[in-house]
Amino acid sequence: MRAARLHGIRDLRLEDLHRPTPGPGEVLLKVASVGICGSDVHYYLDGRIGDQVVTAPIIMGHEFSAWVAELGAGVEGLEVGQLVAVEPAIHCGECESCQHGHPNLCPDVRFCGTPPVDGVFAEYTVMPAKNCFPLLQGLGPVEGAILEPLGVAIHAVDLAHLKPGQTVAVLGAGPIGLLTAAVAKVSGVSAIYMTEPLAYRRQFALDYVADAALNPYENGTDVITEIMRLTGGRGVDVAFEAAGASETPDQAAALARPGGKVIVAGIPSDDTMAFTASITRRKGLTIKLVRRMKHTYPRAIRLVQTGMVDVKSLVTHIFPLESIAEAFEMVAAYDDGVLRAVIQVSA
Amino acid sequence: MRAARLHGIRDLRLEDLHRPTPGPGEVLLKVASVGICGSDVHYYLDGRIGDQVVTAPIIMGHEFSAWVAELGAGVEGLEVGQLVAVEPAIHCGECESCQHGHPNLCPDVRFCGTPPVDGVFAEYTVMPAKNCFPLLQGLGPVEGAILEPLGVAIHAVDLAHLKPGQTVAVLGAGPIGLLTAAVAKVSGVSAIYMTEPLAYRRQFALDYVADAALNPYENGTDVITEIMRLTGGRGVDVAFEAAGASETPDQAAALARPGGKVIVAGIPSDDTMAFTASITRRKGLTIKLVRRMKHTYPRAIRLVQTGMVDVKSLVTHIFPLESIAEAFEMVAAYDDGVLRAVIQVSA
Amino acid sequence: MRAARLHGIRDLRLEDLHRPTPGPGEVLLKVASVGICGSDVHYYLDGRIGDQVVTAPIIMGHEFSAWVAELGAGVEGLEVGQLVAVEPAIHCGECESCQHGHPNLCPDVRFCGTPPVDGVFAEYTVMPAKNCFPLLQGLGPVEGAILEPLGVAIHAVDLAHLKPGQTVAVLGAGPIGLLTAAVAKVSGVSAIYMTEPLAYRRQFALDYVADAALNPYENGTDVITEIMRLTGGRGVDVAFEAAGASETPDQAAALARPGGKVIVAGIPSDDTMAFTASITRRKGLTIKLVRRMKHTYPRAIRLVQTGMVDVKSLVTHIFPLESIAEAFEMVAAYDDGVLRAVIQVSA
Amino acid sequence: MRAARLHGIRDLRLEDLHRPTPGPGEVLLKVASVGICGSDVHYYLDGRIGDQVVTAPIIMGHEFSAWVAELGAGVEGLEVGQLVAVEPAIHCGECESCQHGHPNLCPDVRFCGTPPVDGVFAEYTVMPAKNCFPLLQGLGPVEGAILEPLGVAIHAVDLAHLKPGQTVAVLGAGPIGLLTAAVAKVSGVSAIYMTEPLAYRRQFALDYVADAALNPYENGTDVITEIMRLTGGRGVDVAFEAAGASETPDQAAALARPGGKVIVAGIPSDDTMAFTASITRRKGLTIKLVRRMKHTYPRAIRLVQTGMVDVKSLVTHIFPLESIAEAFEMVAAYDDGVLRAVIQVSA
Repeated sequence: MRAARLHGIRDLRLEDLHRPTPGPGEVLLKVASVGICGSDVHYYLDGRIGDQVVTAPIIMGHEFSAWVAELGAGVEGLEVGQLVAVEPAIHCGECESCQHGHPNLCPDVRFCGTPPVDGVFAEYTVMPAKNCFPLLQGLGPVEGAILEPLGVAIHAVDLAHLKPGQTVAVLGAGPIGLLTAAVAKVSGVSAIYMTEPLAYRRQFALDYVADAALNPYENGTDVITEIMRLTGGRGVDVAFEAAGASETPDQAAALARPGGKVIVAGIPSDDTMAFTASITRRKGLTIKLVRRMKHTYPRAIRLVQTGMVDVKSLVTHIFPLESIAEAFEMVAAYDDGVLRAVIQVSA
Repeated sequence: MRAARLHGIRDLRLEDLHRPTPGPGEVLLKVASVGICGSDVHYYLDGRIGDQVVTAPIIMGHEFSAWVAELGAGVEGLEVGQLVAVEPAIHCGECESCQHGHPNLCPDVRFCGTPPVDGVFAEYTVMPAKNCFPLLQGLGPVEGAILEPLGVAIHAVDLAHLKPGQTVAVLGAGPIGLLTAAVAKVSGVSAIYMTEPLAYRRQFALDYVADAALNPYENGTDVITEIMRLTGGRGVDVAFEAAGASETPDQAAALARPGGKVIVAGIPSDDTMAFTASITRRKGLTIKLVRRMKHTYPRAIRLVQTGMVDVKSLVTHIFPLESIAEAFEMVAAYDDGVLRAVIQVSA
Repeated sequence: MRAARLHGIRDLRLEDLHRPTPGPGEVLLKVASVGICGSDVHYYLDGRIGDQVVTAPIIMGHEFSAWVAELGAGVEGLEVGQLVAVEPAIHCGECESCQHGHPNLCPDVRFCGTPPVDGVFAEYTVMPAKNCFPLLQGLGPVEGAILEPLGVAIHAVDLAHLKPGQTVAVLGAGPIGLLTAAVAKVSGVSAIYMTEPLAYRRQFALDYVADAALNPYENGTDVITEIMRLTGGRGVDVAFEAAGASETPDQAAALARPGGKVIVAGIPSDDTMAFTASITRRKGLTIKLVRRMKHTYPRAIRLVQTGMVDVKSLVTHIFPLESIAEAFEMVAAYDDGVLRAVIQVSA
Repeated sequence: MRAARLHGIRDLRLEDLHRPTPGPGEVLLKVASVGICGSDVHYYLDGRIGDQVVTAPIIMGHEFSAWVAELGAGVEGLEVGQLVAVEPAIHCGECESCQHGHPNLCPDVRFCGTPPVDGVFAEYTVMPAKNCFPLLQGLGPVEGAILEPLGVAIHAVDLAHLKPGQTVAVLGAGPIGLLTAAVAKVSGVSAIYMTEPLAYRRQFALDYVADAALNPYENGTDVITEIMRLTGGRGVDVAFEAAGASETPDQAAALARPGGKVIVAGIPSDDTMAFTASITRRKGLTIKLVRRMKHTYPRAIRLVQTGMVDVKSLVTHIFPLESIAEAFEMVAAYDDGVLRAVIQVSA
């Protein structure tokens, strides 16, 4: 089968590899669409994310949909030819976190496309049957791929316990920030204030769900002052950090109302999350960290099927597998207009 | 001033009473619109709700909007002539419930139109200034009156802690059931299943927000069987009881998924709430009781102002104060097409 | 092997049965101590609990400790000869409840000694290795057996979310009520008020952990009046129902403070749980149902090992397997002084 | 009256000031015992805490008990001569935080001894009657003063939502850390691991409630390694930060189990709270900030009256008001054996 392997920094090679074989409880999947996630780009540009280092050639990719191509022994409930969205994390199922219902915190998780586990920029892959969620009623391969980042957004909103009529800020209008805003929007929020340095993303945010989209680099202090003004001096009930910048966690804390919440979804490149202690303390804030997602696929499917959340308009570019290097370069450059790029492996 | 007082069962009399005078921190209000609530009808038909008995002539009415007519000493932040929605509960502010942020549980609350406290089917009333919430940007007197039952619905949904993509059932499509469904709808719920014996209310529910509206009296067991079928045998995440029938709490328990919630908003005429113990136990249910509302006016105003929740279409009839007896008879008869009737005291 | 099977109402027979063989991931256990639970007595006296009916001879028993006798294929972390406490529920691991961390709500659970699954009033049994929790540091077979009802008590207290310095009522001073009180005691509660009709249990409760132990049948209304007096008219933060009487759920509601909780652990014989609606509504109560337990064994072991909870003094009688019928008759008669009777199958 | 005022850094002067007069709803209090809190020492040594600066002479002191000396107009429920513990925060009662039950987050709070509000290192003070909690049944002036830091500890434990049998770490064995550990101990915790640089405090912790007390400066990495070893590699359910050092928040995060909580009570001198992002993210931690306390006095009194928490042994030194400067110097020096020093203003 054809697959794209990362051999080093900015060294993606298309290769012919052996097609894997499904074991008991597994299925062979013919990969359909795969989103290029920010974490893939980190590996592409830096060869690492923190202490997770690419030390051998690896197939990246984890946001994906696929057609079921072959059933392993004992698999029930799936059919060959069926289009499925695929949860990319394979949890141990035995540890305390898994047993208590938090598979996203499993320390022994195997995650597609995270070293040393191969991902899905490839024609075929094998996954446990229970990771596969059939896509019915007009959900296509591209929407199926975006269910993964949508799941992260749903998990972020789950952590926030929003109430109808509350207000939020979302720092960062990349795909995770936008999807978080979209899920917050359908969760009863009456105002969404976003910040984002890139002009085309601010415009997208306004067209998509935001009530305001501000440029944090126009003038350092204006973002907080302006959102405090928009909220009548009160601050927002929940501030979502989805930018991964060094200053955004503390900005989120500054924007939250007394007793409010800060939900951190961004991954900072310097691996530091710092707050002004007195700001967080005087407001008695609760800060929660988003670790991937749990139990979100069925709900993500319903939110897209009912039209409550639009995932398709986030997909601004589609490339064939052969053009994957070009796609990565485009995403890495934050080219104008790029939100989510998808590799269409098969159609 | 003109006022309607209840002197006995079905004995509403229009009388001339003294206009009250606002004390320090209070305002004189010229009453605009007042909704006729089910509890008003209980007093009208039975002279009591449980152990709350009408023993002397009383002015009923508590769902209302008004114009500020005069400011008592020390009142700031309100202006004469301003249209306000009015929270009808006057809490003690000192008890443990009030101090802990649950004024709706205050045992010493004084509530408009609940014996022995006079309500607002009258030209004027006096209320604390802090009970008055200015209505801006096109919210009129009728919407202002409906903010009170909307607040009950918001409180019911607050208790449910809904997550995006969850599903709910709402038993009863009267005003509280419909508003609860509407608030659930904008809180991320992807499917709403309602039950209601009256055909016109089922139709309204479907036009308003429901995905299904079933008749519980067509065939006793069908409602549960049908909703279980619609949810793939899983049940709903949260079942709201808003009917006040003797069987609906247990139906709600039967509809909830394992680990789900039952939120009871209905007021049963026999004052009993009974469940099949094994059904509630095997599913480990959580049952929460709705007691009026807390802290909902600012959020209710935002939900209506942004167009997220439509309260106006629930108001099917408007009467002048002179026709209040006719209005009560119509509401008490569950006449075809009646949802909320409003008394327009002044315009 | 020797085993006691229930053939019909009050018809327990000692028989020679084939010793089972452990499959992969399972262990053969030589049963040590088995408590006689109230549910066992229900089957013994009535042949059923609600719709769970004894239709074929069954071995009852599920509160137990055992020695590991043989390891099935692939079992790690256990050793032959080791004394273990055994979680009696075998969950499916695949359903939504299991995946979300609520195995106690699994609809496909197989539970030792619940029809049609055989239990452990027998010399040997086979269980999954992961259900076995090694007992270290001086915990003996009898303590090991009582970890199961202790787990139910821990789960009941988990549901209550107690805060240090709060107060509770516990209705019913049988083993579950007493253990719930004991766990509440070490969870920061500053006062525990119990009710119990049997004099020797009231005395035990006072000696064990209770601040007061009242007789509910001395005078119907006195229990509530007296506990309200003891709490200065406020009521308790949490009322635990552990009696299974028809009136105790509503008594619990009457005892809870505004905004308080009612935790229902008792199993009523008429399968009805009824409340006075207005009492629960005016206080905005939260009612939670206790369904067995989840994730409690490691914590139960620590609570007993550290001496925080005394389980041993609850075991008032120990019988050999040969005397099991005599033991059941004694427990069924609520003989003076009986709390938990244990069958010592092997020693 | 005699009072000690801070005129500048290390410049405490005993002066004769006018005795205040209680207004309506207030009481005149004859101050009994006042603890010297770490925040008092911050003002004494630095003249500021963050942006709260001493710009005019101020009476410090806020942990106190007093005798009621005179009742203002309309005060009920208190008697002249009665010993009371006094909540030092005067909340506005009107803001959203106050209305929602979080007076500790009130932005308009007036707090004894925090600039520009005078505190209680003085013979007399005036406070609202509702801030006064009568001390019954043998609680003396010194215990009464320590109810204030005990309240902070109770609030910290409230935020943690501990379950019986869980384990905790407490970083810092000063008064707040020790009281937090004591409250955790009576809240069902089965193991408490503390860290503390000062040897006499480690010894006190072990004698008081700790299962281990480690020196974080003996070897930087050992504390985390050792506590991870003591918890079998799992980490603790909740890590309380009560040291205010720059590294302790991140240590707390390192000690928490996946899905665990970090509760931050310490006040860092550099006003920064920094975490290693990947550690907090991979474990999906929840971080909560302790802001003073809310609603804790009644529970604090019960915990001390029942003997569940020992506050008296924390009071290592008692000084008369005349020796206040000496007392501050001793506390500021972290002299061997000093935990809480109390100024006995009157007896």
